[in-house]
Amino acid sequence: MTTNQLKRVAIVGGTHGNELLGSYLVKKFEKSPSLIQRTSFESLTLLANPEACAVGRRYIDRDLNRCFLSRDLSNPMLSSYEDRRARTINQMLGPKGNSQVNFIIDLHSTTANMGLTIIPASDHPFNLRLAAYFSAIHPLVKVYRWPQSGQEQPFLRSISELGCTIELGAIAQGVLDARLFQQTEELLSAILDYLDAHNQGKPLSLPPTMTVYQGSQMIDYPRTPQGELQAMIHPQLQFQDYQPLNSGDPMFLSFEGKEISYESDSTVYPVFVNEAAYYEKGIAMCLTQKQHIDLGVYL
Amino acid sequence: MTTNQLKRVAIVGGTHGNELLGSYLVKKFEKSPSLIQRTSFESLTLLANPEACAVGRRYIDRDLNRCFLSRDLSNPMLSSYEDRRARTINQMLGPKGNSQVNFIIDLHSTTANMGLTIIPASDHPFNLRLAAYFSAIHPLVKVYRWPQSGQEQPFLRSISELGCTIELGAIAQGVLDARLFQQTEELLSAILDYLDAHNQGKPLSLPPTMTVYQGSQMIDYPRTPQGELQAMIHPQLQFQDYQPLNSGDPMFLSFEGKEISYESDSTVYPVFVNEAAYYEKGIAMCLTQKQHIDLGVYL
Repeated sequence: MTTNQLKRVAIVGGTHGNELLGSYLVKKFEKSPSLIQRTSFESLTLLANPEACAVGRRYIDRDLNRCFLSRDLSNPMLSSYEDRRARTINQMLGPKGNSQVNFIIDLHSTTANMGLTIIPASDHPFNLRLAAYFSAIHPLVKVYRWPQSGQEQPFLRSISELGCTIELGAIAQGVLDARLFQQTEELLSAILDYLDAHNQGKPLSLPPTMTVYQGSQMIDYPRTPQGELQAMIHPQLQFQDYQPLNSGDPMFLSFEGKEISYESDSTVYPVFVNEAAYYEKGIAMCLTQKQHIDLGVYL
Repeated sequence: MTTNQLKRVAIVGGTHGNELLGSYLVKKFEKSPSLIQRTSFESLTLLANPEACAVGRRYIDRDLNRCFLSRDLSNPMLSSYEDRRARTINQMLGPKGNSQVNFIIDLHSTTANMGLTIIPASDHPFNLRLAAYFSAIHPLVKVYRWPQSGQEQPFLRSISELGCTIELGAIAQGVLDARLFQQTEELLSAILDYLDAHNQGKPLSLPPTMTVYQGSQMIDYPRTPQGELQAMIHPQLQFQDYQPLNSGDPMFLSFEGKEISYESDSTVYPVFVNEAAYYEKGIAMCLTQKQHIDLGVYL
């Protein structure tokens, strides 16, 4: 798609009903829309999963943020609340591949200690440049690319090629954290300024290189053949997202107190360490490779 | 009741289905019962709310840990899953007031930073002496008394006059924390040793005084007349459970960034600060008075 002029930007919260930071930011913007207005584009807000928000759960029937594959959006047989809601959202913001909104920012929080993580919606250079800019100027911002980010993704953000998810943490499900709330609001406002500057032909200056944490492998907890957990995240790894994990470093601690180490030739940088919602998905953490990208190729 | 000889001790976890530490400790003890066996009493384990544990939610219909008032236990018209489960538990461990088990330890976790908090099941001197002992020897142990702890309580632990709740935190709902898991297991084992020493007529020596945080007042979040949140816990108060809050200190931060201070003549010590499950109960924190008790009167 062309990035010459972004006409509509959507700020989405409450895609998961127990991630309060995003939904309360959206509610704040809906009360005070001037906060997200910019001269060169229209800003929209969306509380994505209102029923899940009302009961304070991640979802009602299934994870809304896995309902946006094209084949699912076009399958009327899928009748769960979230499948129906995904089709509605696709009508409001999409349709996917040819979306009415040009840029989507989807706000999430995690029990992992991921600070302010920007996850580009796609490998489009525009997304990477934006992420590079904020990771250069903001000490808490890290850039994470989902494994196989080149393939079609089931996430809400994938309705638009341009955009990102912001993952905030560490924060428990069902609570607000005032410091992260303020930091996220400031980052959001700065992203809108960045988009506005782009639209006005005055793009902000980029750093020469950026650091990207490229997801490479999901790691599950050790489990019994019946699927029961056998171990927990090791205390030395808890809250250590984005820190190097070297061969021999402890990863898990069994309930009986036995250490289980990471064994590999390569150093990795785990993220989503001990994310509550990922227990049921069979993910204890996501290993990433730390990559330094020369931004010259994206200018 | 007499405390001469404790014959049965119950260790309960999973009273709330999204507090994983307790339920996984109970599962561990059920696999390795020798860990909780002592010569002078029988140890029982109970996963209190198995249906809520299976779906990873605090409860199915209503909070099980508010279902143990005598009038509710004897009311067959109350038909929610948790009301029925409370009656079953009361048959297994109780009946309340004349219980088969002599001591109940109910394991909970909280998103508040409460370390290892012992909440005595009643003001019985036996409970206070035990709490005093562990708060003297363990740097993370604090003792909290629920407001109006002299009145009948709706908590599971109230089936037996002797016992306690252990509150562990800060820990997000739906996750395990290996360090707290190990600390809790050690504390539990030491409590069983303490009870065993008592039974054997060799009680462990107590400190002369103890510090108790006596709950005095529940504080709700600032809300609109419609009940919508207007503010969050102030960053300076987040994770500061058991720290002094003086008049003029910030308590809340509104979504618009306005500070709301604590105003009173007396210094208080908040606990359950930003507990996720208490948003729906209208509790942002519980204020306590820090009391020093001369244990001489309880010997």
